[in-house]
Amino acid sequence: MTTHYFEHPLNEKTRIYLRVEALLTQLNMSSQFSDDMQHLLFFRSLFDLLEIFEQIQLKSELAKDIEKQRISYRSWLHVEGVDQKMLNNVLAEVDEVHSKLMAAERFGQSLKEDRFLSTIRQRFNLPGGSCCFDLPALHHWLHLPIEQKIEDSRKWIENLQPLTDALKLWLRLTRETGHLHPQEARSGFYQSDAEDANILRLEIPMEYGVYPMISGHKNRFAIKFIFFASGQASCDNIEFQLAVCS
Amino acid sequence: MTTHYFEHPLNEKTRIYLRVEALLTQLNMSSQFSDDMQHLLFFRSLFDLLEIFEQIQLKSELAKDIEKQRISYRSWLHVEGVDQKMLNNVLAEVDEVHSKLMAAERFGQSLKEDRFLSTIRQRFNLPGGSCCFDLPALHHWLHLPIEQKIEDSRKWIENLQPLTDALKLWLRLTRETGHLHPQEARSGFYQSDAEDANILRLEIPMEYGVYPMISGHKNRFAIKFIFFASGQASCDNIEFQLAVCS
Repeated sequence: MTTHYFEHPLNEKTRIYLRVEALLTQLNMSSQFSDDMQHLLFFRSLFDLLEIFEQIQLKSELAKDIEKQRISYRSWLHVEGVDQKMLNNVLAEVDEVHSKLMAAERFGQSLKEDRFLSTIRQRFNLPGGSCCFDLPALHHWLHLPIEQKIEDSRKWIENLQPLTDALKLWLRLTRETGHLHPQEARSGFYQSDAEDANILRLEIPMEYGVYPMISGHKNRFAIKFIFFASGQASCDNIEFQLAVCS
Repeated sequence: MTTHYFEHPLNEKTRIYLRVEALLTQLNMSSQFSDDMQHLLFFRSLFDLLEIFEQIQLKSELAKDIEKQRISYRSWLHVEGVDQKMLNNVLAEVDEVHSKLMAAERFGQSLKEDRFLSTIRQRFNLPGGSCCFDLPALHHWLHLPIEQKIEDSRKWIENLQPLTDALKLWLRLTRETGHLHPQEARSGFYQSDAEDANILRLEIPMEYGVYPMISGHKNRFAIKFIFFASGQASCDNIEFQLAVCS
């Protein structure tokens, strides 16, 4: 049975984290320039990231959140029945990621100062603005040997490594706190309490032909299922899987 | 010897035509959804096109320009030494493209009214806004069978066929009016007169490590060559190929 995997953030900060995760994934997937168009996605993802870095203090937010996880995991030290070896491994990973994060520059600072990237960033968001006459420097770069382009992209991505590692760790530990359990939305509607939750994870069978519209915050949320074909709310009973992760 | 092919429009209308051509190419190249990211480029190109259609009356501009080409080609009818068979073929093609263009709806009208496309268009330009929680309908669509997605994209692209055909024809006939000739930019600078020209086409050897910065209008233009590595103007004598197309 095909299912539709879905994640929903229950606060603004997690919303940004998930967007940044998606952008980092796009950046990596398009960094080999294996067809004539991947550079479009590569630079778009990179510039979207820079825009987010300008809007919020991502580094300090993330450092605080990793610190919270560290305190929470430390409280399990020497508790009977807790796998201490596994716990110490997680704590060592948290320590390493946190110290590299603290040592990093403000996210994207060097990228913002890169002459080539600044030259092309401004016009990149014009509709159709990636033509050679709009971005002559980019079109020269595109004609460089593939090895050089990949080396450039590697350097730009490397600059974001402390962010990538910290974000991946925080999201992994957060996602691991919740496990998928079967639920039923009666007449297409489901609501529940949550305790200080960050992310909902859902698996919805495709056969219902619906997608979820989710509202709520860290302590309470509601899911309404909408028919894809009509855009109308579903009145069917819908069985799906749900994990609440905090 | 590797060369860097470059085109520059000499008026605002041609600038838009070249951007639309680039977007249509991206749209077609990404319409098979052959990896997890092509849909990003597909929808971005489609929405960029819709934005351009809202800003200018592209259909009537293009119809006027194709009409001008028809008048110009007709003036060669029955002129001795002109290949009449080839001329009649071009005129038949112009007639067909022009009448299909006139019969078409305002570009993008049906696409603007498409419920699915309107649902996702608004949030698509947010930085990182293509996450499932921002665009749940899109994420449902992405889980549909590939055949259905390709069929949807085929219908959307088909809607733009009269535009594609007319634009391709106008650009082909325009590009054919100019032929590449060797030129030299003394101390990195070249200027020349043009007679009512629309497009400059350039071929620049990569070995100089420069890209062109072009200014000008339909009757006069100047080309300054810039070092890619330093961003500074070149003072070298640069041999390149140039075609002026009207």
